[in-house]
Amino acid sequence: MPSLPVPAEFDRLWVVLVATRNPLNLGAAARAMSNFGFSNLRVVNPYGAAFREARSAVGAAELLAHAEECKSVAEAVADCALVVGTTAARQRELQHPLRRLEHGARVIRKQLGSGRVALIFGSEKRGLSNEDLSHCHWLLRIPTREEHLSMNLGQAVAVCLYELVRDTKAEPEREKLQPGTAGEVERITATLLDALRASGYLNPGSAASAEEKVRRLVRRLNLRAGDSEVWLGMLRQILWKLRSKRHPEAD
Amino acid sequence: MPSLPVPAEFDRLWVVLVATRNPLNLGAAARAMSNFGFSNLRVVNPYGAAFREARSAVGAAELLAHAEECKSVAEAVADCALVVGTTAARQRELQHPLRRLEHGARVIRKQLGSGRVALIFGSEKRGLSNEDLSHCHWLLRIPTREEHLSMNLGQAVAVCLYELVRDTKAEPEREKLQPGTAGEVERITATLLDALRASGYLNPGSAASAEEKVRRLVRRLNLRAGDSEVWLGMLRQILWKLRSKRHPEAD
Repeated sequence: MPSLPVPAEFDRLWVVLVATRNPLNLGAAARAMSNFGFSNLRVVNPYGAAFREARSAVGAAELLAHAEECKSVAEAVADCALVVGTTAARQRELQHPLRRLEHGARVIRKQLGSGRVALIFGSEKRGLSNEDLSHCHWLLRIPTREEHLSMNLGQAVAVCLYELVRDTKAEPEREKLQPGTAGEVERITATLLDALRASGYLNPGSAASAEEKVRRLVRRLNLRAGDSEVWLGMLRQILWKLRSKRHPEAD
Repeated sequence: MPSLPVPAEFDRLWVVLVATRNPLNLGAAARAMSNFGFSNLRVVNPYGAAFREARSAVGAAELLAHAEECKSVAEAVADCALVVGTTAARQRELQHPLRRLEHGARVIRKQLGSGRVALIFGSEKRGLSNEDLSHCHWLLRIPTREEHLSMNLGQAVAVCLYELVRDTKAEPEREKLQPGTAGEVERITATLLDALRASGYLNPGSAASAEEKVRRLVRRLNLRAGDSEVWLGMLRQILWKLRSKRHPEAD
């Protein structure tokens, strides 16, 4: 199974975290970036020691060590051709065009083909300020419920980056377990029927329709090739024991 | 703008967290559930006080108050028709069919149309045990990088639930800002040209090609209807000031 390819375009995305308060969120954002193959992080005025403390985040230490500290949003986005802000607000409150993540991510991916993109996340309590938003070309929103719009910062970063790496055209993973052949399934059916007769569940006078019912029942199991052998072994053992029980003198 | 509809099917999904250690992760999982419209949570043997401490999670208190505590995975999934485990592992290490999230979510959504589904997440350190996995019909993996497969628990829950609510058919949000009409754009162009002449940037002898260059320049701005008025006002004021400066006696 191939690992997730990291397209060269991903090197053109900058994640910008503005005024983050909680080092755990900074660490979580960095970890999600590493999970999904993004490595450029800029932090604008993180609170107090948040940035230093976050550097121990699981699996993202190197990424955090290379993160750049900026004094303003303007500085953090200066070299980007497209600047996208994230918000939990709805259109009526905004002066900006707003795109749902599903659509916005498509626009971002297109832009990454030729130029740098900044994706900006505000602080945990207040999100992005109007001044921060004025640096953005448009805004992105995650489709959360009206009754609970605001996501945790680390989770919002993870969801946005997942949508960017999401690949509808990726081959479905092949299930390594192949279905059993009709011959295997019929051997199982025959052995099961023998066992049902030996146990008295079916008797010699049972209608053919009872057998057909069992046959259909086994087909609906969707038995897999590797499993068929195991089932056949179990049934044969049970059948052997049933037959030997009927004739205890044969033991 | 309509809020995210919460289909009745979402009531058939159970999120099952097994042996969660960190109350922050329990809280984050509950918050993501609330963000995306899922309300059924079961916890299997959470560590120590993790479950009680998590109950204060932002915006998810009610959901956590209604969470059910189970003694085993078997108990937590007993009433579900489909049981899906989550894993960071790759196919070669697994005895189960494995689906990438993009595809697996489609199968889950289909199943939710008619029956209950359990989506199981293991502990932060070890994920799901082989015993836990043996209760699953198949496994789901988030497409993370080979070099950094394992996601934070709260983020993994958020990404999986996002994929379940994701809607490619949702209407793109209408940008409320309409482009300016050609007439508005031409009025701006004319005023700008007057200002450029008044400032000496263009002079009466400038070639017509210079004017055409300015005209194309303004068209490429993609001015919006509401903005055109503002630009025209600014330019007129500048032009007025330029003209009055040329003739100080007119002041």
